[in-house]
Amino acid sequence: MSSGVTATTAPTPSASPAPPASSLPGGARERLVQAAARLFSTQGVHVGVDAVCREAGVSKRSMYQLFTSKEELVAASLVAQLPARAAELLPPDEVRDPRARILHVFERQEALEPGNDFLGCPFLSAAVEVKTSEHPAAAVVRDQKAGLASFFAHEAARAGVADAELLARQLMVVFDGASSASVVSARPLEGLGVLTARMLLEAAGSERPQ
Amino acid sequence: MSSGVTATTAPTPSASPAPPASSLPGGARERLVQAAARLFSTQGVHVGVDAVCREAGVSKRSMYQLFTSKEELVAASLVAQLPARAAELLPPDEVRDPRARILHVFERQEALEPGNDFLGCPFLSAAVEVKTSEHPAAAVVRDQKAGLASFFAHEAARAGVADAELLARQLMVVFDGASSASVVSARPLEGLGVLTARMLLEAAGSERPQ
Repeated sequence: MSSGVTATTAPTPSASPAPPASSLPGGARERLVQAAARLFSTQGVHVGVDAVCREAGVSKRSMYQLFTSKEELVAASLVAQLPARAAELLPPDEVRDPRARILHVFERQEALEPGNDFLGCPFLSAAVEVKTSEHPAAAVVRDQKAGLASFFAHEAARAGVADAELLARQLMVVFDGASSASVVSARPLEGLGVLTARMLLEAAGSERPQ
Repeated sequence: MSSGVTATTAPTPSASPAPPASSLPGGARERLVQAAARLFSTQGVHVGVDAVCREAGVSKRSMYQLFTSKEELVAASLVAQLPARAAELLPPDEVRDPRARILHVFERQEALEPGNDFLGCPFLSAAVEVKTSEHPAAAVVRDQKAGLASFFAHEAARAGVADAELLARQLMVVFDGASSASVVSARPLEGLGVLTARMLLEAAGSERPQ
């Protein structure tokens, strides 16, 4: 019930059934998706399929047997990052207080950015880069963001917030704005996201823990 | 005194002195910068110089006489957008109340996005896309964001906010987060940025207008 992000059903990256990775020599699909995630995150989604194939050690012909388009490879590279991203951001079950569970996400966001070279949220970056909401990757990003918003709304309701959905949307603004501030400044946020989230929680009338 | 954004001194896009645009046939520099701004904003800063030169009707040789690198062309294309962006976002002098002046920016941001195909802030997008704070374009973005933050801080101080600098940083988080929400959802914000900014203004103890 606290797995808002992972619970999101990501759109299937390929509409036509691709052969399962396990049936392919050396896990070509897995290697392609991992190489794509690495290159697209650090250099941008405009990186060409040639570079991804080279990095993965997979032929372009094999790539196009697995993905009908570059767009699908971009989407699949994001889907592959969903579980790790959720694990990075969401609180462990031991954290029980709903306010603490929400603030944990902002603490983790700030803690992760220096090790991420201040590249910001990889999902948000992909949405910015693809330039159209019609891109299959944009759908993955919408779902990932909706998953995190659901987590916030669930915890906000537990914290006694009257309009938990609205607060969740505001917390998403803070989350993505803090990610953007990391990218722009390339410096630690010094608690800016956590503090802003806390102020909105209080303004929304959440109950302080006993 | 209310021109925080325009008052920002943008870094000179070229370290070596380029010939003034007026000395060039047909204003090659101006045409290049405008074409670059158009293509980089709508397609991303990875668009090649060949495409920019074609769009501008300027030879690549001429381009490299004006800009020592693609990076400098990206930075110059952002510098060229600073005045129009400030005019789009900042309140007219007739708006006197500092809270109203701050909220005006968020109202304008929301109003502009549908006509902008929900591409978000062009400065933020460039910072996300260049992937390194060392890029000359990243310096232009930092200055543009610092200019808007200065405007917020100035008005917040006028509104009686004790820690106007902190509130300004938070308002920047809301501004860039609302921009991101526009990109992700590709739908109007329905007042989300304005409402969130207003709540932070109130939480920070700004005085309501008489």
